[in-house]
Amino acid sequence: MCEAKAYLKKENGLELFMEDVVSITPENSTLILKDILGHSKTIEGKIVEIGLLDHKVVLEITSSGNL
Amino acid sequence: MCEAKAYLKKENGLELFMEDVVSITPENSTLILKDILGHSKTIEGKIVEIGLLDHKVVLEITSSGNL
Repeated sequence: MCEAKAYLKKENGLELFMEDVVSITPENSTLILKDILGHSKTIEGKIVEIGLLDHKVVLEITSSGNL
Repeated sequence: MCEAKAYLKKENGLELFMEDVVSITPENSTLILKDILGHSKTIEGKIVEIGLLDHKVVLEITSSGNL
């Protein structure tokens, strides 16, 4: 299976944000992530890197949550 | 294996842009795609949707190629 783990890029490294991600849809300044169970999470952020072979998606939050 | 096919979103549908994509790295307003052989392609564009289960990445060109 090709699910990925989504990580948030932090000052001190990567923090696991979501497992078993199957889709990522950018919408305006947000990213909508869905996992294999159909759960979804939305963050105000951008994609830093997608690595399909190591099943890893790195995201970066672009706002401090004040929007 | 989890390589994906990258498509460009066109007025009349999707056009295959690159096969066996293993990584996508946004950099400023461009996207750098690499395939399993190490070849890379760069486009001025953005990610529309990433579907890991159907191995499909949809991209959209954001400039007319004049940059």
